[in-house]
Amino acid sequence: MVKAEIITIGDEILYGQILDTNTQWISLELDKLGIKTIRKSSVGDQKSEILQILNEAAQRADVVFITGGLGPTKDDLTKKILAEYFGCDLVMHPQALQDVTEFFAKRGRELSDINRDQALLPTKAEFVRNSQGTAPGMWFNEKDVIWVSMPGVPYEMKNIMEQEVLPRLVNHFQMPVIYHKVIKTVGIGESYLSELIENWELQLPEQIKLAYLPSMGIVKLRLTAVGEDLGQLQEAVEVELQKVNPIIKSYIFGYEKDELAEVVGRLLIDQKATLSVAESCTGGHLAHQFTQNPGSSAYFIGGVLSYANQVKIDQLGVSEQILASDGAVSEACIQAMSQGVRNRLGTTYALATSGIAGPDGGTAEKPVGTVWIALAHPEGVITRKLTLGGTRMQNIYLCSLACVNLLRKYLLNDLN
Amino acid sequence: MVKAEIITIGDEILYGQILDTNTQWISLELDKLGIKTIRKSSVGDQKSEILQILNEAAQRADVVFITGGLGPTKDDLTKKILAEYFGCDLVMHPQALQDVTEFFAKRGRELSDINRDQALLPTKAEFVRNSQGTAPGMWFNEKDVIWVSMPGVPYEMKNIMEQEVLPRLVNHFQMPVIYHKVIKTVGIGESYLSELIENWELQLPEQIKLAYLPSMGIVKLRLTAVGEDLGQLQEAVEVELQKVNPIIKSYIFGYEKDELAEVVGRLLIDQKATLSVAESCTGGHLAHQFTQNPGSSAYFIGGVLSYANQVKIDQLGVSEQILASDGAVSEACIQAMSQGVRNRLGTTYALATSGIAGPDGGTAEKPVGTVWIALAHPEGVITRKLTLGGTRMQNIYLCSLACVNLLRKYLLNDLN
Repeated sequence: MVKAEIITIGDEILYGQILDTNTQWISLELDKLGIKTIRKSSVGDQKSEILQILNEAAQRADVVFITGGLGPTKDDLTKKILAEYFGCDLVMHPQALQDVTEFFAKRGRELSDINRDQALLPTKAEFVRNSQGTAPGMWFNEKDVIWVSMPGVPYEMKNIMEQEVLPRLVNHFQMPVIYHKVIKTVGIGESYLSELIENWELQLPEQIKLAYLPSMGIVKLRLTAVGEDLGQLQEAVEVELQKVNPIIKSYIFGYEKDELAEVVGRLLIDQKATLSVAESCTGGHLAHQFTQNPGSSAYFIGGVLSYANQVKIDQLGVSEQILASDGAVSEACIQAMSQGVRNRLGTTYALATSGIAGPDGGTAEKPVGTVWIALAHPEGVITRKLTLGGTRMQNIYLCSLACVNLLRKYLLNDLN
Repeated sequence: MVKAEIITIGDEILYGQILDTNTQWISLELDKLGIKTIRKSSVGDQKSEILQILNEAAQRADVVFITGGLGPTKDDLTKKILAEYFGCDLVMHPQALQDVTEFFAKRGRELSDINRDQALLPTKAEFVRNSQGTAPGMWFNEKDVIWVSMPGVPYEMKNIMEQEVLPRLVNHFQMPVIYHKVIKTVGIGESYLSELIENWELQLPEQIKLAYLPSMGIVKLRLTAVGEDLGQLQEAVEVELQKVNPIIKSYIFGYEKDELAEVVGRLLIDQKATLSVAESCTGGHLAHQFTQNPGSSAYFIGGVLSYANQVKIDQLGVSEQILASDGAVSEACIQAMSQGVRNRLGTTYALATSGIAGPDGGTAEKPVGTVWIALAHPEGVITRKLTLGGTRMQNIYLCSLACVNLLRKYLLNDLN
């Protein structure tokens, strides 16, 4: 098992001014390759601290990732310290110099001396191209350890890892072939899901491992197959997918990087259908789930945010009588809201929300977390009552998620 | 200077399944007290790894914070290893047992043996109450170091730190008195802000330090005063606030934990005014900035999401002629949208957005990032053209922020 250590360098992360997200991303990528992270550390912009952690890591790890401290300013020490640690000089690297020169030329900016110095590299470093920024990455094979130094800017680091470092690692450590498949589920909790697929999980072949990755309202299942032949692994995973699919079919909304609202958006486009929303308790959050995605204007027509009852009456045609007898948080109201917006905006489908998100506004009969949602479609209206127990923001989020999922299941003809 | 080290224990964080946010939060709180974080580390649920990091930290730090590994299951090792490391037994702690018993009784659940064992504590530990969960915190004074062990659940950890640990630290280390004041600004970049206040910054008395904490669209200025008398520090900071306020008055939207949309909501409530929105490019995100806050129904009436042009015509009264001649992303259209929603929903104010969020849809004349916003008020309409250069999500966010800020400045009679 190849052991990795990840080090971030910089006072901003150490003192908490910046949240470090690089380290998590790197460890997830390593996990996918079968490389085991054994330690994560964060130190400041101090020479003694940096040298100390390098010495420690050299004792523990087969590969060490270092992010940060590669900027052009005086407190960026990483490159100088690595040169000193490995006992070599910094010299101008022709390819790095060409890259940084072009970087500035493309942006119509002058190359200052301080930026030119970004192309100085320790002679023992292999140059690792950074196509997104001015500080090159470095790869060292010293002290029986592979050392990878990268800038701390997340998109630069990720690009360097994906384009350069991960392929080199597979090659250098002759890693076994690994194949991953992520199944994304919605509308079922982790523990109930694990009960449903228990027998399937128990019969998985030894070369395939299963991991549960839960987040609010969504549970991801990651299958990891390890072997020697990619085709064989893909086939073995496909066989298992075919087995598990019938058991949890109606909870699976996608695979890999699929997002729920994007998946539903694609279904709407495929069916040449359009969507509108009438939002009370979600207050814009439901529409935002769709409109944050590029291309959503192909199916999302618009909506009415009916926070006040008068807006429900005037803009959606909810009757005053329903509001007086049943109240705004009721099945009758949500039916009228969804049909009202569907008719007025002339869409194929309409989703509606009305509920008590909290923290105030609850009653004995309708406590905080009581939410009605509805889907109006060409043949009628489907309603659901939710009982949520989270914070205001969690209730808003879970209500939006339930709406999008209700539409997904309707479009797939999968409502029970 | 008191030196701190922060350690997270757990495979989920080490392998990247969970993003660690505790460590950042703790280091920010320590920074406020004047305690310097010198190292952050993350190790897995392995006895040897945990013992190793404890030994290392004991050499470096005056106080060590440990989160995680306190759950009731077998892979939670922290408590046992701490007992072994300090050479003492685990015994049932009466107060901890009473707390965990009450915790379960209140929720109508039975206290299992495994949960009862949560009240076992190392004899050398001082009990630190966890009012939000079942695993108590622990405080050790051993090996010339203070050790604080807390559960990894963020809200439990934060509660324990605020209620119990931070006061004990101030007391134990006889920390100097520190007073902080955070000024929150919007609508100005960090570099321009620092130019504006350069002279003020240079004349700050030695006991007051200034830090810039920038995030997207918002820059926070944190003043930190260190001394012996809280009253004197507050007064000294107040004097500086009075000096800097006239220089950057129109950019300051609040202090401490104030959020922009909440501040504007309070202004609306104070003025007994109401608000509606007409959103095109922000697609619900603008309304969500208001409706995510408790109590927003006191001023937020509703809105129209007019993604399609036909909705702009039918629901907002935008003329077909404007859409044909000027297009949807134009000053004429945004004026009509804001006045349309204001009239139809009968609100004091209305905000409107129309623009090209990207990544597609730009033209030579109106590239991606071209956005019009408007505020309709009782005397007319104010419009602004924005030229944004971010991703789709950044453009949506910055457009919403600019709208909320436009309303803030109007309500404060601060528009130039």
